[in-house]
Amino acid sequence: MASRLSQLRALFKDEALIGGSAIQAYLLPSTDAHQSEYLAPSDFRVRFLSNFSGSNAYVIVTEDKALLWTDGRYFTQADKQLSKEWTLMKQGLPETVTPEDWITENFNAGTRIGFDPSLHRFEQAQSMLEKFQQNKIIAVELQENLVDCFWTERPPASVKKVIALSQEQHGRSTSDKVREIREVLSKKKAKAVLFSELDDIMWLMNIRGFDIPFNPLAFSIVFVTETDLHLFIDLSKIDDTVAAHLNQENVQCHPYPTANHFLQNWHNENRAKPGYKIFIPQSTNYSLGSIFEKQNIIVSISPIQLMKAVKNPIEMQGMRDSHVRDSAALVEFLCWLEKEVEAGNVVDEIIAAEKINHLRSEQSGFVDLSFDTISASGEHAALPHYKHDDETGKATISKNSVYLLDSGGQYRDGTTDVTRTVVIGEGDKDFIEHNTLVLIGHIENAIVRFPKGILGIRLDTLTRKALWERGLDFGHGTGHGVGHFLNVHEGPCGISYRTSNPDGGLKAGMVLTIEPGYYLPGKYGTRIENCYELVDDSEHPGFLLFKELTLAPIQKSIIKKDLLEKKHIDWLNGYHERVLKIVGEYLLKNGKKFEYEWLKKQCSPL
Amino acid sequence: MASRLSQLRALFKDEALIGGSAIQAYLLPSTDAHQSEYLAPSDFRVRFLSNFSGSNAYVIVTEDKALLWTDGRYFTQADKQLSKEWTLMKQGLPETVTPEDWITENFNAGTRIGFDPSLHRFEQAQSMLEKFQQNKIIAVELQENLVDCFWTERPPASVKKVIALSQEQHGRSTSDKVREIREVLSKKKAKAVLFSELDDIMWLMNIRGFDIPFNPLAFSIVFVTETDLHLFIDLSKIDDTVAAHLNQENVQCHPYPTANHFLQNWHNENRAKPGYKIFIPQSTNYSLGSIFEKQNIIVSISPIQLMKAVKNPIEMQGMRDSHVRDSAALVEFLCWLEKEVEAGNVVDEIIAAEKINHLRSEQSGFVDLSFDTISASGEHAALPHYKHDDETGKATISKNSVYLLDSGGQYRDGTTDVTRTVVIGEGDKDFIEHNTLVLIGHIENAIVRFPKGILGIRLDTLTRKALWERGLDFGHGTGHGVGHFLNVHEGPCGISYRTSNPDGGLKAGMVLTIEPGYYLPGKYGTRIENCYELVDDSEHPGFLLFKELTLAPIQKSIIKKDLLEKKHIDWLNGYHERVLKIVGEYLLKNGKKFEYEWLKKQCSPL
Repeated sequence: MASRLSQLRALFKDEALIGGSAIQAYLLPSTDAHQSEYLAPSDFRVRFLSNFSGSNAYVIVTEDKALLWTDGRYFTQADKQLSKEWTLMKQGLPETVTPEDWITENFNAGTRIGFDPSLHRFEQAQSMLEKFQQNKIIAVELQENLVDCFWTERPPASVKKVIALSQEQHGRSTSDKVREIREVLSKKKAKAVLFSELDDIMWLMNIRGFDIPFNPLAFSIVFVTETDLHLFIDLSKIDDTVAAHLNQENVQCHPYPTANHFLQNWHNENRAKPGYKIFIPQSTNYSLGSIFEKQNIIVSISPIQLMKAVKNPIEMQGMRDSHVRDSAALVEFLCWLEKEVEAGNVVDEIIAAEKINHLRSEQSGFVDLSFDTISASGEHAALPHYKHDDETGKATISKNSVYLLDSGGQYRDGTTDVTRTVVIGEGDKDFIEHNTLVLIGHIENAIVRFPKGILGIRLDTLTRKALWERGLDFGHGTGHGVGHFLNVHEGPCGISYRTSNPDGGLKAGMVLTIEPGYYLPGKYGTRIENCYELVDDSEHPGFLLFKELTLAPIQKSIIKKDLLEKKHIDWLNGYHERVLKIVGEYLLKNGKKFEYEWLKKQCSPL
Repeated sequence: MASRLSQLRALFKDEALIGGSAIQAYLLPSTDAHQSEYLAPSDFRVRFLSNFSGSNAYVIVTEDKALLWTDGRYFTQADKQLSKEWTLMKQGLPETVTPEDWITENFNAGTRIGFDPSLHRFEQAQSMLEKFQQNKIIAVELQENLVDCFWTERPPASVKKVIALSQEQHGRSTSDKVREIREVLSKKKAKAVLFSELDDIMWLMNIRGFDIPFNPLAFSIVFVTETDLHLFIDLSKIDDTVAAHLNQENVQCHPYPTANHFLQNWHNENRAKPGYKIFIPQSTNYSLGSIFEKQNIIVSISPIQLMKAVKNPIEMQGMRDSHVRDSAALVEFLCWLEKEVEAGNVVDEIIAAEKINHLRSEQSGFVDLSFDTISASGEHAALPHYKHDDETGKATISKNSVYLLDSGGQYRDGTTDVTRTVVIGEGDKDFIEHNTLVLIGHIENAIVRFPKGILGIRLDTLTRKALWERGLDFGHGTGHGVGHFLNVHEGPCGISYRTSNPDGGLKAGMVLTIEPGYYLPGKYGTRIENCYELVDDSEHPGFLLFKELTLAPIQKSIIKKDLLEKKHIDWLNGYHERVLKIVGEYLLKNGKKFEYEWLKKQCSPL
């Protein structure tokens, strides 16, 4: 990768690009102009530059250093993927400074730092620029992304058509959603609101796109005024059906690249009006946000984030239904895997991933995977976000070795995410103990009753306590929100160990994963993940409970029963009873007698 | 109180005071110029105006409304103390807006809002003013506090002398502390730092004062430059001994009121120097902070907060020693109370409070109480921060009724804080169940092993889970930091249920309370509180454990044993063993044979 870093550094002095004297460093967060977590190939600049393929990264390249920040999920992976020229900055460790602090601590007054304004959140950019200014460091806003300048084989942008959901699929019309948004505008005394997070826009418009792998999103921007509703999108992606759908909801469509110009004009026409204000969600990028003057904007969490997180009855029913089909595919896979391995057939990570992906794709309503399948055998399972390649994927799933499968699907009626860790044969004693501690953590969280409105961070400890008791822990959050046929990681709710968003209070109708794990580098890893809906507790008003969506067996032969308390055993047996009842019935209905019999054994009481 | 509100509102139009056209509202946070939690009587303006005596309050008075914000600890108390003219704004409930949002939602552009710049934190005032500006609301900075203008019987300021601690008492010289602070300055590239939180200053100077009840603090400001150390304080409070102590540490003393002028001059002399920057802790008030220009300041947590929270070996030994004596006083009290009540003698809340206060005052090294003793009988115990008055204090502690005592002392070697809830006779069945759930919560937190550096909020759930299981909860945090012969509530660490300060990661050497409770309004309340030090876990590097400082018996006859798991019983029996060994020995050494025998019974295994 040396040559790519050199190519980038050569541009530091390119007067035409930089528009002045040379910069001494360049900032590159791994995101796109919509603050997406998963990136279209054409936006994955950090991977192109550094070879690191994790979904969270922030890069600073200076004249003699290249630094990459990422979180605990990716430490081991980054160590492997980054060449010696790179320094890994481990987010979340007390000694790790933020990229901004690193800049101010390592550069003197007068240093020039280049950045791409479309890749930084508006408020974060503002505070970064202020900090730089305090330190007399000069931030240089570059209209062209420097990596794109030498990325000769940059993949082309997607031109895939978008689709529209029907009333039976989305459960709530765009007009009704817009009505609620306009109520928020009125309360905030704002004249308009700008949306640029793609899942916000898809949800609002009841459409889905296919520009980004795994996430059913189309690049777009929405501007809602007191009277009008503007959608900026590549018009070639809209066929007649979708056009009719949008037309019915009074959506005015414009070409995507005209958004900045349109907003600039709108701003100019309205800025002099009394009480003129614009609502800018926190995720808006600096390039869009700085169209407006500071005194005219209100920055806050996107109202759609809060609306979308609580699923409507149609959406929730879709989540339930899609999870039954998705769990059935997983049961078929686990049954197949056991049979193959027991028979001594070679199954490697690639073959296994292809099998589960194929089984999912056969389910009705299947659209895509919801993320890249993590198919990890043995020590690969110690990397929480392992991704096999042609080479590593040849690792076989042999008898007595650990196999971790984290996978999910996008269906027309919902999105799934599930992890199971299994051993065909006999598990290692230490592994079984660790796996049991992880299971206890999962159950402790799944059975908790808690007051509605609390922050997810307050539940995180429950999944860890059994590990902590033995001086162990895991380096990622406990759970995340899940979209309805949308992003598999959906805000603002979650069960994080970081200080979370105060707007992320937990409410009935939200969907969360619970996914504790334990990872022993170089040896094995385990994670047990289900999706849950949050439901009101009928016995105790004001309290919420978790109710499972995922219905797949949890392997009993790798549980050390004497570590479990009665409540854990009761939960597991009750869960398996429901798995057998619901998924078993579904399998039988589809003529999968062999798989049903296998599942029955898995679901017998512990 | 009607007349006081009217008197305040009359001043809204006082041109001489307001310096322009009338204001429509006045903001009054309940604090002083040092952001103190407990106030000198002369600073307790909110109590004078509203009659509310809780330690957390924020008041907005408009032409026709009077609103008071406070938190869950004080809801019931505020309901009782506020007259009908007042609206209670319950902090922490999802529907409660912040005072700033209330202003912007209820006032139109052009409204003028008065405030006292010395009572607002610098950054909070900045963001408030920015928000007001966005809404075209005019903030009017008033040099004179409006309440003081008609508070004719405002108590005079304290003139009590300060004392100096010896090396054997503080464990670390001012020079050494200043050396570390200058290292922080150098890292932050700042030329100086301003301290205005009084416990920061006492700790740095190794002095204590007596200007505020319960907190050993003297009004003062400190300014540390690269070479000099300035202390602003009423010079009449410094006797020859203290002067010599300060002189030895090269402290330059100045009269308190000259601080603003001195800082203004210093700023003017230095502002033109290259790289000129000043470090302003977050607690600095707006009046002081705005002496400096925005581009010259770095706002962050006070470095002393972080240094002070981790006790040095001398401080920690003092905490341990003072807790033994303090616990002995509490044992004497509990023994006395049982004897009196059993004998049918009348003991009311006032008599009980005087008794424990007296017993504490007899202990060696006693200086003061660490807060106003909460002596609460029966339904009064349902008010977490109940304060008896001449009338309510006549409630007797009778047989079979609940009595809650939350109290603590300031000693020359440490600060204590302990709550015990007892029933002399037989406890109500429901109460015993609730008390047991609170005990389980306490123990679950006391026995947890956890990774060092985590935020306290991550432990908070442990004290609540047993209550949540039954649809119950309590409306205050689980615990707070405790100072060494300093504030009984000390930041930045704590076990809060609110999003806590990211600088509050837990470290060995910190002192925290664990104090879950349960409150049934109109009936009873219970709380079980101990102080703990955080210690490294020798078996599991990187993990911390709680080790008790408080050593007082927890009443066994109000525990429903069959709700406890073995680990809870083991903890309680082990704890009581240590109580008997350490405090019992101390009692015997002091000839308290009767109390020792009583304690022995209390400490027998459950």
